[in-house]
Amino acid sequence: MVMTSEKISVAVLGATGSVGQRFIQLLENHPWFEVREVAASEKSSGKTYKDAVNWIQSTPIPDNISNLVVKDCEPTLNCKLVFSGLDSSVAGEVETAFASRGYYIVSNSKNHRLDNDVPLLVPEINAEHLELIKQQNFNGGCIVTNPNCSAIGLVLALKPLVDALGVEQVNVVTMQGLSGAGYPGVSSLDIIDNIIPFIGGEEPKMESEPLKILGSLNGSRIKYLDIKISAQCNRVAVIDGHTECVQVKLKKKATIEQIKEVWNTFSAEPQKLNLPSAPEKPIHYFEEVKYPQPRIHRTIDKGMAVAVGRLREDNLFDYKFVITSHNTIRGAAGGAILCAELMKAKGILKV
Amino acid sequence: MVMTSEKISVAVLGATGSVGQRFIQLLENHPWFEVREVAASEKSSGKTYKDAVNWIQSTPIPDNISNLVVKDCEPTLNCKLVFSGLDSSVAGEVETAFASRGYYIVSNSKNHRLDNDVPLLVPEINAEHLELIKQQNFNGGCIVTNPNCSAIGLVLALKPLVDALGVEQVNVVTMQGLSGAGYPGVSSLDIIDNIIPFIGGEEPKMESEPLKILGSLNGSRIKYLDIKISAQCNRVAVIDGHTECVQVKLKKKATIEQIKEVWNTFSAEPQKLNLPSAPEKPIHYFEEVKYPQPRIHRTIDKGMAVAVGRLREDNLFDYKFVITSHNTIRGAAGGAILCAELMKAKGILKV
Amino acid sequence: MVMTSEKISVAVLGATGSVGQRFIQLLENHPWFEVREVAASEKSSGKTYKDAVNWIQSTPIPDNISNLVVKDCEPTLNCKLVFSGLDSSVAGEVETAFASRGYYIVSNSKNHRLDNDVPLLVPEINAEHLELIKQQNFNGGCIVTNPNCSAIGLVLALKPLVDALGVEQVNVVTMQGLSGAGYPGVSSLDIIDNIIPFIGGEEPKMESEPLKILGSLNGSRIKYLDIKISAQCNRVAVIDGHTECVQVKLKKKATIEQIKEVWNTFSAEPQKLNLPSAPEKPIHYFEEVKYPQPRIHRTIDKGMAVAVGRLREDNLFDYKFVITSHNTIRGAAGGAILCAELMKAKGILKV
Amino acid sequence: MVMTSEKISVAVLGATGSVGQRFIQLLENHPWFEVREVAASEKSSGKTYKDAVNWIQSTPIPDNISNLVVKDCEPTLNCKLVFSGLDSSVAGEVETAFASRGYYIVSNSKNHRLDNDVPLLVPEINAEHLELIKQQNFNGGCIVTNPNCSAIGLVLALKPLVDALGVEQVNVVTMQGLSGAGYPGVSSLDIIDNIIPFIGGEEPKMESEPLKILGSLNGSRIKYLDIKISAQCNRVAVIDGHTECVQVKLKKKATIEQIKEVWNTFSAEPQKLNLPSAPEKPIHYFEEVKYPQPRIHRTIDKGMAVAVGRLREDNLFDYKFVITSHNTIRGAAGGAILCAELMKAKGILKV
Repeated sequence: MVMTSEKISVAVLGATGSVGQRFIQLLENHPWFEVREVAASEKSSGKTYKDAVNWIQSTPIPDNISNLVVKDCEPTLNCKLVFSGLDSSVAGEVETAFASRGYYIVSNSKNHRLDNDVPLLVPEINAEHLELIKQQNFNGGCIVTNPNCSAIGLVLALKPLVDALGVEQVNVVTMQGLSGAGYPGVSSLDIIDNIIPFIGGEEPKMESEPLKILGSLNGSRIKYLDIKISAQCNRVAVIDGHTECVQVKLKKKATIEQIKEVWNTFSAEPQKLNLPSAPEKPIHYFEEVKYPQPRIHRTIDKGMAVAVGRLREDNLFDYKFVITSHNTIRGAAGGAILCAELMKAKGILKV
Repeated sequence: MVMTSEKISVAVLGATGSVGQRFIQLLENHPWFEVREVAASEKSSGKTYKDAVNWIQSTPIPDNISNLVVKDCEPTLNCKLVFSGLDSSVAGEVETAFASRGYYIVSNSKNHRLDNDVPLLVPEINAEHLELIKQQNFNGGCIVTNPNCSAIGLVLALKPLVDALGVEQVNVVTMQGLSGAGYPGVSSLDIIDNIIPFIGGEEPKMESEPLKILGSLNGSRIKYLDIKISAQCNRVAVIDGHTECVQVKLKKKATIEQIKEVWNTFSAEPQKLNLPSAPEKPIHYFEEVKYPQPRIHRTIDKGMAVAVGRLREDNLFDYKFVITSHNTIRGAAGGAILCAELMKAKGILKV
Repeated sequence: MVMTSEKISVAVLGATGSVGQRFIQLLENHPWFEVREVAASEKSSGKTYKDAVNWIQSTPIPDNISNLVVKDCEPTLNCKLVFSGLDSSVAGEVETAFASRGYYIVSNSKNHRLDNDVPLLVPEINAEHLELIKQQNFNGGCIVTNPNCSAIGLVLALKPLVDALGVEQVNVVTMQGLSGAGYPGVSSLDIIDNIIPFIGGEEPKMESEPLKILGSLNGSRIKYLDIKISAQCNRVAVIDGHTECVQVKLKKKATIEQIKEVWNTFSAEPQKLNLPSAPEKPIHYFEEVKYPQPRIHRTIDKGMAVAVGRLREDNLFDYKFVITSHNTIRGAAGGAILCAELMKAKGILKV
Repeated sequence: MVMTSEKISVAVLGATGSVGQRFIQLLENHPWFEVREVAASEKSSGKTYKDAVNWIQSTPIPDNISNLVVKDCEPTLNCKLVFSGLDSSVAGEVETAFASRGYYIVSNSKNHRLDNDVPLLVPEINAEHLELIKQQNFNGGCIVTNPNCSAIGLVLALKPLVDALGVEQVNVVTMQGLSGAGYPGVSSLDIIDNIIPFIGGEEPKMESEPLKILGSLNGSRIKYLDIKISAQCNRVAVIDGHTECVQVKLKKKATIEQIKEVWNTFSAEPQKLNLPSAPEKPIHYFEEVKYPQPRIHRTIDKGMAVAVGRLREDNLFDYKFVITSHNTIRGAAGGAILCAELMKAKGILKV
């Protein structure tokens, strides 16, 4: 066991929000990182964490966090690595301010995701995009971002297809879990015995972010993948887990068995480096015709993998299939932690 | 008020099942039809209806039905018009037997839907398909069918587009209500906080039935609409109402406003004939970005119309939009009753 | 049909809230009353109703309300009868201000319910409590209140027992619908696959209000019913409808059949006066062992009756049974409208 | 790590049912026991387990179970310790047959629970009841039973009160999770947006079983606790977890703080013996007014503890409070496994 004093101190911005809580929950007992600072909005700062937070996780507040005093989101925190779960209404400026003062920011917010010099990082897919950091003009600090919670499952399933077969078109319809809307988020009166066929800002993110994530590093820039994606996003009465009906048009013909093989054998840098939060297998394919299902598969491989099933031929595209992944673990806090683990393993994180 | 004795006597086959119950509920106080015979499987026959049925509707069993003795599904019932809510495992033969003995069968079962000489009838769309009855070799009887519950909303929304603009491709992903699976149907353990991304046999029906429904009468045959449809079907935690994300490629360019106009002004024979179960407007378009929603819109216009919303341009097709319709009213019993009303209004039903 | 101009003009305070919306929905096509004024907080005043409201009912905003300009909650509205669906944080003073200026206030808010000179009115139970109005020192105005949404079903079921047999103790555990918490109210993340065994302020209301409602008019005061009630209140994943497990200790012994008879034959002044919103039978007893259920029975008799079932002997009290009633119809707006109807029928409402 | 070959072989009867599946899931990686035989009804026997079962757990079928051949429920299995998750329609005779052939049966079925010579065992409460086994006339075999899933949480919370203060009356109203009804169990159409205020046979069990569990060993018999319990049982839309509103009348007066202290310090033989499945603390008291909640607390302490909260004075009894416990872990398979662990630790299980 690593002694506490040897772990890397980390801070969580937006620590009282739903993503912030997940950071704190997932970092409890992390082998490399330890939360030593929590920061949030004025409403919470100055209070102890346990008094400031409306804790909604199913495990209790970690003992070492409970009595931390919540700080302001000012770049005077005593640790270099900072996870940001800030609301997008403030994340842009705050994260820039931190990076400018030398902090390493790993952010789950959308604000900097499409900035030219900011990696939109999925460690299994585009570890080399970390090169972009060198373009960032911060005093030793940097900003790295994690994609939208509904994009992450999609790109994990697409990556091996892009590499092995080429992808020309992607059509996706989502059925997204409620925790994606934060807390209190969606009113129970709006969703029980109901569907909301609209999620503000979600469809544009799903149609753009994957193109950058799956893009290639071209000198100091990312060349976006040159394909069209169409996304339709729905909110459904599921607590956690985003389920997506995906259709793809491929460049090379392939059989169903070949595609399953491509998925089942997919492994990447996080698996080679044996990163603490990496799933053993990024993609789990299920043969049962009724799978994947969010309640059963969202926690697969620590909630860090994507479950895939129902691969079959399609009348309009080449193939269609269904995916499920955990939106607040792989799709938010867990994904961001994996990014930081990759940065440390590759020597980018110098603390 | 029409005197009871002047109403047309009807029978319901499969009267104790969930579709059968809806027939009985919707026919209570019907101005033209009155249920005088109920028939079901051996398990129920001989009992009074109230003893045989596990009534799951929210209105009570109509008084005049409660004490009817349930008959066998044999063609010896004392009324010519027969609504069939039989399970598909038995519907095919039973319906043929009835028609052969001179009964008019209006069926909600899938068995005869794609028979060459059987109309797959949606009165707003293909009233002229009733001509097919003349090809049927029954002794004065006939079989008319109602489409699958998830196809009906789709074809209602497509019909005005097909007519005004031409449709080349249709892509649809459904989120279907639980009542579509009958009773007891889906276990609560499978659907609360969950999605089932598979419904047995549903996708083939959605990919084929619309082609016949939207096809044209060509002499004594239906020429199917020559387009490709791709369907993906999901079961969600909604009691009633099927919601569908639809994408279309059109033959003629049209603006969003033109398409809305085409929908908003759509009216057809059931409206002109003022049939008792006809919706005032078959299509209701909603401008609110979060609409349509199944719990709010499934009962619109007596549950007989389709609610449409979110029309917008698409990256891969021309347009995408969302529809919701009631699967056990418009999509089953109510739709079948409207078929019978059309047959009576056109003089086909001679009783 | 009564001509519009002959109907009594009414105003709704808190018209954009969930109770306010129900008032507007239920008063559409009311034979005696017509909404001509809507008032709400500063945030809404000055806007048209359709722009100010987040309408969450399943029927559309009535046409004659949609373009009404929302007024401030100031006693300068142009109608004498005012329904209040105000939040309790402001209802107390606003209602007093209106009454002082001569308005008839029928309120669903808790603030004045236990005032000595204010009737806590359930027309089937204590119509004679309207006498209290004479004690009110307003300039011709008055305040009448409707009880808490979970108390109303209970007292309706208790009233015939109190009269026929005497009640000594009442124990009640509720499972309450989500609409009782207003909109947005309970977060979906808190209630799907869950129960919240606490509703702020609810238990004290249920333990006190019935004692006044069931009390007797003694000169100019209400003599509270002298019994003990214990209440435990839970929030469950039900949209509308409060279900309650009730135990009673009676003064006189009675058989199960006698109690059912007492319930089944219960009828009171609203039924005799044939008030427009009165249920035909205030109490519907169901013999099926699995009944009553909120989704099936909440709308019984226009949502104005209480459904009762499972009457059986109890080990600790005399009997136990289950009740369900609609919390936003009988338990809020509908109940308040019935109060106003009673006041008009008895000549108290002079407009 | 204990070598596999040193573990005690166990069989599971009714292995394909929902309780049987939980046994298999919870016994995966058990330090003392290893499942080597699975048995079920004729329909399944002869098939491999993975082909016979409709696996509904969220973790996969353990590898060592997947290809076991399902046997008939005949007393010819090759292991002495047998867990029974059989349906009560067959459990009685089958369990007797096994015990008569020398098997140790630990059963979750109701059939033998109230037999005079069969312990109804909750290891934290009545370990000494194991003495009853000596009365059993089997050839070295025995039957031990686990209580009803809704009784177990109740008796755990009552036990320290019975010991420290004496309990005279218990009133309980339950809101029970769906998994208690088995699979497929409750239809989704019956429970979404609804409550079912009836569970067949449940109330009598809750009113009788606690009296035996909390009774005292009196020579060779159990002297039942001489109090009255009243129970009302409801099914609600919660996957796992039974929540109960409890009222108690005590023999000795006690303050709220004293009762909390009694609960918080409660520990018993399974904790002293450090049994593998024993919770660290059988009772967890929560101060937050909105707790306990089933989704948050059902898995507390491996799902083997009861969560308690909202202790407050009552108008009719002395105190009322709320409890939640996991019905298929502590309330079924986990509770039975703890019984077997106790039997082994006390030297009763000789294998």
